[in-house]
Amino acid sequence: MAIILDGKKVSLDIQDELKEEVIRRKEKGKKIPHLAAILVGDDGASITYVNAKVKACERIGFKSTLVKLPEITTEKELVAEIQKLNEDIKIDGFIVQLPLPKHINEQKIIQSINPKKDVDGFHPQNVGRMALGLKTFLPATPNGILEIIKRYKIDTVGKHCVVIGRSHIVGSPMSILMGQNYYPGNATVTLTHSRTKNLKELCLQADIIIIALGKPEFLTADMVKDDVVIIDVGITRIPDESKKNGYRLVGDVKFDEVEKKASYITPVPGGVGPMTISSLLMNTMNATKLNK
Amino acid sequence: MAIILDGKKVSLDIQDELKEEVIRRKEKGKKIPHLAAILVGDDGASITYVNAKVKACERIGFKSTLVKLPEITTEKELVAEIQKLNEDIKIDGFIVQLPLPKHINEQKIIQSINPKKDVDGFHPQNVGRMALGLKTFLPATPNGILEIIKRYKIDTVGKHCVVIGRSHIVGSPMSILMGQNYYPGNATVTLTHSRTKNLKELCLQADIIIIALGKPEFLTADMVKDDVVIIDVGITRIPDESKKNGYRLVGDVKFDEVEKKASYITPVPGGVGPMTISSLLMNTMNATKLNK
Repeated sequence: MAIILDGKKVSLDIQDELKEEVIRRKEKGKKIPHLAAILVGDDGASITYVNAKVKACERIGFKSTLVKLPEITTEKELVAEIQKLNEDIKIDGFIVQLPLPKHINEQKIIQSINPKKDVDGFHPQNVGRMALGLKTFLPATPNGILEIIKRYKIDTVGKHCVVIGRSHIVGSPMSILMGQNYYPGNATVTLTHSRTKNLKELCLQADIIIIALGKPEFLTADMVKDDVVIIDVGITRIPDESKKNGYRLVGDVKFDEVEKKASYITPVPGGVGPMTISSLLMNTMNATKLNK
Repeated sequence: MAIILDGKKVSLDIQDELKEEVIRRKEKGKKIPHLAAILVGDDGASITYVNAKVKACERIGFKSTLVKLPEITTEKELVAEIQKLNEDIKIDGFIVQLPLPKHINEQKIIQSINPKKDVDGFHPQNVGRMALGLKTFLPATPNGILEIIKRYKIDTVGKHCVVIGRSHIVGSPMSILMGQNYYPGNATVTLTHSRTKNLKELCLQADIIIIALGKPEFLTADMVKDDVVIIDVGITRIPDESKKNGYRLVGDVKFDEVEKKASYITPVPGGVGPMTISSLLMNTMNATKLNK
């Protein structure tokens, strides 16, 4: 039976620590972290995510500003709003909630953010700093995964880590981070994806599997070896009439059977998911210290 | 018997193509590429490298400018020189020859270069653009390796590529590039390094091995499977009294025995090495088009 990597608890622990740090900063007269978020349009999921971020700020004593812009906002207008936040010394870090309406070029928007305030870690300069092992803002999910690994003191040195999925926000950065020459890292890393031919064979060699595919229950017990560490980033809504809201959340791992072989495993929900907000808050605290 | 990947020939082919492109640009009244190089101090190897770059420019009709600064140049003075080149519209791209004297912070210098003129591809913003699959200047060695793979039409899709060594200028970027979702890439990539425990076992699974360790004749025939593709980035001087200059150049691969099993292999010298100058010249041509 695996140890369950309780992302919800770790996330709350981090938020408690940040809350205490805010209190100490207040006592010393230091600047209180201030996160801003830009939301364009009325996408339901985006509103939910942004509101959760704002609420988390309130809970731990950060200041927050929500800039709501209409769906019809032009790229130029959005860049102008970003420029204001780039220059506003009260704002330590900010995010532009993605996805953006289709008429706006996301990459152009990301690149207009001051890298020193880019607490989502999406600006190419911050991605590059990550790849070079320089201090930077790591994207929320990779940052959250590293934090779970650290707090559970999972050994990664010389371990074979197989990453499944090469997205720019999870798989690709995780493959880079796990191979770097400091903890958590120093793993031998294999990055696999849709063109990989012998995935099962590779997974069977893995000491650590990080899966971010979005394919419910893709990873089954016959694909993993005993004592594997499983980090499940997938989260998919599956219709389920037995549930009040009509669905349940399922990860990329067939949890019930894989859990029996694993040494550590993240549940879905309650594993990697809850870590993302804490990652953002950690980055905001670091931005406050950086820009002081 | 393997097909020898003749980097010297590929490099000269590329230079011929660039030479013709310069002639066509001249005819059309377009800007002629102009590369500048800054050399600080009198390190013998650095002087040789920089001179080779300047000579290659002359040969293909690029303009070049060599800025020689004394060993005692301060960081501030060097940044001022870089600033001049950043702003000089005649200069399309430039490099600062590394290594720099110890009193100068290399990372600070690299970050002061305008990313649009950073034809070495070392600026974090360009490293990030590479990791994100965006158009950028690739560092010379990775760029050269991709060019060899392309010109010999080596199949990489779904192949297992094992990269040995995780330096920021070769191993790490190669591992990222070989896994991206376009050719040459789409390989399943394993990045190995000093902490890897089962290197031989991994190498025996590899369809492609890219080795950049600097350990002469490290990779032996018993470590590779039949028909493997070998890219040998290592180059070490070994004392050899039978040679006029008293040494010979040796790669990271035990060539004589591995060549018998491989399908393709780069020799040392004459493989990856000669590609670096052509990569720089290609980047300079692209910078000229970008900054027009």
